[in-house]
Amino acid sequence: MFRNHSQSPLVTAPAETAVLALLLAEGPLSRVELARRTGLSSTAITKAARPLIDDGYLYELPPERTAPGAGRPVNPLAVTPDREFFVGVKISDDRLFGVVCDLRARVRATAERTLDSHEPSSVAALLTDLVDELLDTDTAFRDRTRHLGIAVSGDVDRGGGRVRFSGRLGWRDVPLAETLAGTTGLTVTVENDVKALTIAEHWFGEGVGTGYFALVTIGAGVGSALVVNGELVTGAYGVAGEMGHIPVDPAGPRCRCGAVGCVEAIASTGAILEAVRRGTGAADLGFDRAVEMARDGDPVAREAFARAGRAIGVGIATLVNLVGPERVVVSGEGAGTYDLFGQHIKDAYAAHAFGAAVKCPLSLRPLPWEEWARGAAAVAVQALFPPSTAAAALP
Amino acid sequence: MFRNHSQSPLVTAPAETAVLALLLAEGPLSRVELARRTGLSSTAITKAARPLIDDGYLYELPPERTAPGAGRPVNPLAVTPDREFFVGVKISDDRLFGVVCDLRARVRATAERTLDSHEPSSVAALLTDLVDELLDTDTAFRDRTRHLGIAVSGDVDRGGGRVRFSGRLGWRDVPLAETLAGTTGLTVTVENDVKALTIAEHWFGEGVGTGYFALVTIGAGVGSALVVNGELVTGAYGVAGEMGHIPVDPAGPRCRCGAVGCVEAIASTGAILEAVRRGTGAADLGFDRAVEMARDGDPVAREAFARAGRAIGVGIATLVNLVGPERVVVSGEGAGTYDLFGQHIKDAYAAHAFGAAVKCPLSLRPLPWEEWARGAAAVAVQALFPPSTAAAALP
Ligand SMILES: [Zn+2]
Ligand SMILES: [Zn+2]
Repeated sequence: MFRNHSQSPLVTAPAETAVLALLLAEGPLSRVELARRTGLSSTAITKAARPLIDDGYLYELPPERTAPGAGRPVNPLAVTPDREFFVGVKISDDRLFGVVCDLRARVRATAERTLDSHEPSSVAALLTDLVDELLDTDTAFRDRTRHLGIAVSGDVDRGGGRVRFSGRLGWRDVPLAETLAGTTGLTVTVENDVKALTIAEHWFGEGVGTGYFALVTIGAGVGSALVVNGELVTGAYGVAGEMGHIPVDPAGPRCRCGAVGCVEAIASTGAILEAVRRGTGAADLGFDRAVEMARDGDPVAREAFARAGRAIGVGIATLVNLVGPERVVVSGEGAGTYDLFGQHIKDAYAAHAFGAAVKCPLSLRPLPWEEWARGAAAVAVQALFPPSTAAAALP
Repeated sequence: MFRNHSQSPLVTAPAETAVLALLLAEGPLSRVELARRTGLSSTAITKAARPLIDDGYLYELPPERTAPGAGRPVNPLAVTPDREFFVGVKISDDRLFGVVCDLRARVRATAERTLDSHEPSSVAALLTDLVDELLDTDTAFRDRTRHLGIAVSGDVDRGGGRVRFSGRLGWRDVPLAETLAGTTGLTVTVENDVKALTIAEHWFGEGVGTGYFALVTIGAGVGSALVVNGELVTGAYGVAGEMGHIPVDPAGPRCRCGAVGCVEAIASTGAILEAVRRGTGAADLGFDRAVEMARDGDPVAREAFARAGRAIGVGIATLVNLVGPERVVVSGEGAGTYDLFGQHIKDAYAAHAFGAAVKCPLSLRPLPWEEWARGAAAVAVQALFPPSTAAAALP
């Protein structure tokens, strides 16, 4: 992350951190409920909330009716959504998608740009321009935005603000946060796109309140991100959630990572297309045509999707057997062909989930690009918290 | 866990919990170091340590020499190891192994019993007798032991103190903690044996100070347990770390869990023996003979071990790609045949570890049975902490 104007996190004390995180993710809560959930005393809650109320981040709702004899009425605490805004931008292969979100991660404005070049300086210039346009849509955005989040595919060093490697953009060690902090004047956080989406889903979406949660993306690549005990799994060496590169078939094709039989080598859009081309001998076949053929019942095309579905289902079962999520959300552009492999995913998952792990539901959730940009904004919201406790503070 | 005499945890406040956990795992630390590590103020550290000093759990070491100009000398805080003792018992197929450990999980006494029956009430009676013998070895043990930990293979409901299912013992829903709390007068915690061993290694062994850690056991079964962000991974449905039941080969044999191609179906002692029997036609062959044949260069036996090694290596790579441990410890009775498959494990692991994940070292650590009983004692030590924060309090 790169901070400007010597900005420090909004909250630093553990109690403030816990109170703000709970109210952001779950909406209004009474002090009693906050005390119960955080394990803090009511006095500590009141003390922690005070500076946040004074700063306008929290406010007291009108008293709730309480049960007779339950003591004096309680004023639940709530986050003031408009107190601060956050810009999030997803960098895809051919486009920039940007959003302005409020404190509760609701999307308040959107904009996009077509990428003509992957050259880092031209991407940064276009991105700066996009941020300007977004902030210009409302003077409140311009006045009350301090944080920018960027979501990008590949290996991201969030702490250092660098994209270490992005195969799709052809980037290696790009200091994106520093560059954008300079051009936008905002505090910039860069995160891997699947992790960013998972953070958004865990804080503000299907994962709210779950200690164990996983999101799997399918499409041109296969990825996943995991939440364990309320925290994003980042791995000791920065590698985690690489569901695309777990080996599921020693007789499978070689993956672009160099290994044999990875999920991605069987189930990515490219791998499916390659299998249909090889099986039909039509070397110039496009992916849309392969989808049509499968929908028309062509056995080669159908088997390519079936095999991809089995690999994804086995990958999800593996993830579930090892980590035990409460639910798994399946998303990504590959969700558009779910009719062709969804049943194979579910069957393979059910066949390989161990014992009670089979209780973990899979839910398909096609997420529009806007959601990915919202993921980037959620990462920006996390910059309100101290880096080491941002994840731990989650309910 | 089943508590007797209305015992409550020794520490309940977050600050006390953090201070005691750090000192237990890492040995003496200065208040300054404790403040730095916990994020608490020096005043809060002093306040948190006070009742623990008064109770005899902590003491102040003589002042350390400090650098010139560094202010007044500091008295590091340390745990009094003999302040309390803990009994741990591992239940194996044919034996009970028991230890008495001190607060730092050092083994102070050992004893064992031969199991003639798996009938729960006779196991409980023998176990009670073993605990008595252990406590009788020293009056200090008898006077200062309040907690008993039990480690058993299978599906354990730690919170409810029940063994939900143990295939090796033929147990289903055995309320072991309640029974033993009644017969021993101790507070009893029951935990899965691999998880117990992992807790001991993470608190007091090779995993100290690691946020991400994994332990893999090989032998009659294949299992693993994972630590993520300092906490044991337990899974939303009580299933996690099931490395033995992740699918690695669609062409592999059927597993006793019902699925096809699990690591355990290829790499357990029984699976290896079965492969040698099938390959040689010698249906009565014993495992020791299969090992001898492999060591003598028999190609069928060698290939059975090689295939097992590859399955284990692929399983470890999968675990590492998904969760990103800092190190993986490989143990279990299968470590005795590491000469036959160790290189295959390492090669398959290296071939499938993704990117920087390959930095994660595998270390082989043959653990005697005493270590498993020590794992059970470590689980008993955890009973000093509030259930919800025991794991979170770890450094
Ligand atoms: Zn791969
Ligand atoms: Zn199995």
